[in-house]
Amino acid sequence: MQQFSFHSPVKAFFGFNAIDNLKTLLAPYKTVCVVCGATSAEKTGFRKYMDEYFKDKDIHWFNRIEENPSINTILKGGKFARECKAEIVIGFGGGSPLDASKAIAAFATNNKGFYELLTEEKLEHAPLPVICIPSTCGTGSEMNNYSIVTDTEKLDKLNFAKENTFPKYAVIDPVFLRSLNRKTIYATAFDALTHCIEGFVSVRSNPFSDSHAVTGMEIILATFAAGADTSKDETLLNFLYGSTLGGVVILHTATTVLHALGYYLTNEKKIHHGTANAILLPYYLEMMRESGVQKCQVVDALLEKYGFDISRWQDALGYDVSIRDVLTEDELENMVDYALTKKNSEWSPFEPKREFLLEVLRRY
Amino acid sequence: MQQFSFHSPVKAFFGFNAIDNLKTLLAPYKTVCVVCGATSAEKTGFRKYMDEYFKDKDIHWFNRIEENPSINTILKGGKFARECKAEIVIGFGGGSPLDASKAIAAFATNNKGFYELLTEEKLEHAPLPVICIPSTCGTGSEMNNYSIVTDTEKLDKLNFAKENTFPKYAVIDPVFLRSLNRKTIYATAFDALTHCIEGFVSVRSNPFSDSHAVTGMEIILATFAAGADTSKDETLLNFLYGSTLGGVVILHTATTVLHALGYYLTNEKKIHHGTANAILLPYYLEMMRESGVQKCQVVDALLEKYGFDISRWQDALGYDVSIRDVLTEDELENMVDYALTKKNSEWSPFEPKREFLLEVLRRY
Ligand SMILES: [Fe+2]
Ligand SMILES: [Fe+2]
Repeated sequence: MQQFSFHSPVKAFFGFNAIDNLKTLLAPYKTVCVVCGATSAEKTGFRKYMDEYFKDKDIHWFNRIEENPSINTILKGGKFARECKAEIVIGFGGGSPLDASKAIAAFATNNKGFYELLTEEKLEHAPLPVICIPSTCGTGSEMNNYSIVTDTEKLDKLNFAKENTFPKYAVIDPVFLRSLNRKTIYATAFDALTHCIEGFVSVRSNPFSDSHAVTGMEIILATFAAGADTSKDETLLNFLYGSTLGGVVILHTATTVLHALGYYLTNEKKIHHGTANAILLPYYLEMMRESGVQKCQVVDALLEKYGFDISRWQDALGYDVSIRDVLTEDELENMVDYALTKKNSEWSPFEPKREFLLEVLRRY
Repeated sequence: MQQFSFHSPVKAFFGFNAIDNLKTLLAPYKTVCVVCGATSAEKTGFRKYMDEYFKDKDIHWFNRIEENPSINTILKGGKFARECKAEIVIGFGGGSPLDASKAIAAFATNNKGFYELLTEEKLEHAPLPVICIPSTCGTGSEMNNYSIVTDTEKLDKLNFAKENTFPKYAVIDPVFLRSLNRKTIYATAFDALTHCIEGFVSVRSNPFSDSHAVTGMEIILATFAAGADTSKDETLLNFLYGSTLGGVVILHTATTVLHALGYYLTNEKKIHHGTANAILLPYYLEMMRESGVQKCQVVDALLEKYGFDISRWQDALGYDVSIRDVLTEDELENMVDYALTKKNSEWSPFEPKREFLLEVLRRY
């Protein structure tokens, strides 16, 4: 057992009607800034809930978070929260608004340029408190301090994460997932699954993150094995808990070369983050097996235990398992070159050599 | 899956040489109050370590924590920390000094009577930050906000725990366990084991605490199964990690009637807290089995998997398995009556009826 550190500082309220905790959590505050996408608050019923139960609060909606939020959006959100004098930020939605809410809470109290604050070791002013409320079952963003922001000029993804950019609370209520379509649920469940798998095999894994990673893999695989009927509340609940655990896992481990490769598919081909990970997962498993990664045996045993047929679920995502159908040879090389510039790649359980990655990715 | 909440807010540094993190953690502070027992800092080498590496700090030693710290000791410690103008409190030692350090940090900034502060819902002033450094492998106190204080007049144990009395950091380094004798290590390991078992079966258990409870039971039972040679670092490391996980578990679940009964043995018979739990464990298992507690089957399966023979380890503690050898019939009834006044009893996985408890406890 190596030396390691661990914690899970976000206080999470999980389960059906967990949203009712919001009444207590918001009690000390009057002015609230909600960070979300253009339509999800309406579609999911969250807007209605807020309007109904918080008539006495000043609620300001910054509903301008796009998928893969840009630097510009974060700066605008920070200005918005600052100018409406928000005392607390609520991030509502998928990974993008949750990630954005954490960075926006930091820019609200620190009126600086993006790269200036990104490179500051300690924030001059503490960020506003943040409550994250996920409406997908993928990122686990509500459980960590990560905030992935896209530099649209450089076509690059940056992680704005500081010691004190953790949400204060997470409210994780499956009721907001009921309006999601099947494809999105599966894509985000694949994202959560890869968080658990990559975190488990990562060179940064530790006994604490491993407990959560194994539990997360089990619950997601068992839910797929049970048919993953997305009209059932139990399915949403299970995927959501797996996703939450994945968020705790990658807080400790970050991700590995799988995610680094996937970022390219999202940046260049506009493929959903979770779908990108689903496409890459079979290749990643082959890389691990051929590199003799010991912990991959545990993953394989779980995949077998639950009879997990990746291609079946990839079909449900509407994507072929073949990366050659998605990328040209030139693009394939660009993807690998891009991935190798990312820090995540270093934490892979095998040495991610350019030729080795290319060779496996070219196979089918 | 019921609604539940979870977190593990203490940032823990675990493993051999984890103590070296103290240099970074103490960097922002000049005046430090160390809360510990009369001799353990010297015996374990912690005093030497502090003298060697923190010559530039003002370190004030409040080394007056007795086993089962009294209200009086807590108030004196708070005054001591306040008067030496400590900016941070370090709790060093077993459960008693760790528990005491958290309460002392609160009284340092809140100059009030014990019962006055105990009953205050929110502390007027935030407590001083606390770093807990365990020198036993039992309580897991470093991972939660509990602080058990003894009212020596009423012969009662009270839990001084507030939302913000969590340690900021835990530094968990087996090096400080090397000077412990075998009996103490086993007694504290039994304490940790009962935290995991009681937390697992508790009516307050949830999927998050269950992950930690199962991992904790496994690591402690596996270490006993491997012979529990306390001269081996691996033994200390494993018991210590199990204890730490137990601390995370009871943060969510608290304990049950086993601990409530055990408090009586400690209060009245001066039996070590861990030994008291070890004596009571076989009775508790019988109570669960006869009440048809479902989760007890998981516990039993683990006990069997690791061939755990409780009586063998109880012998090593120097105590007979028989509670009738320790208590008279009158005392037995007093113990049960006392336990039933404690909130812990309510969280038992069976209804702790007076006659049922007495009947099982009278058996041998
Ligand atoms: Fe992801
Ligand atoms: Fe205990």
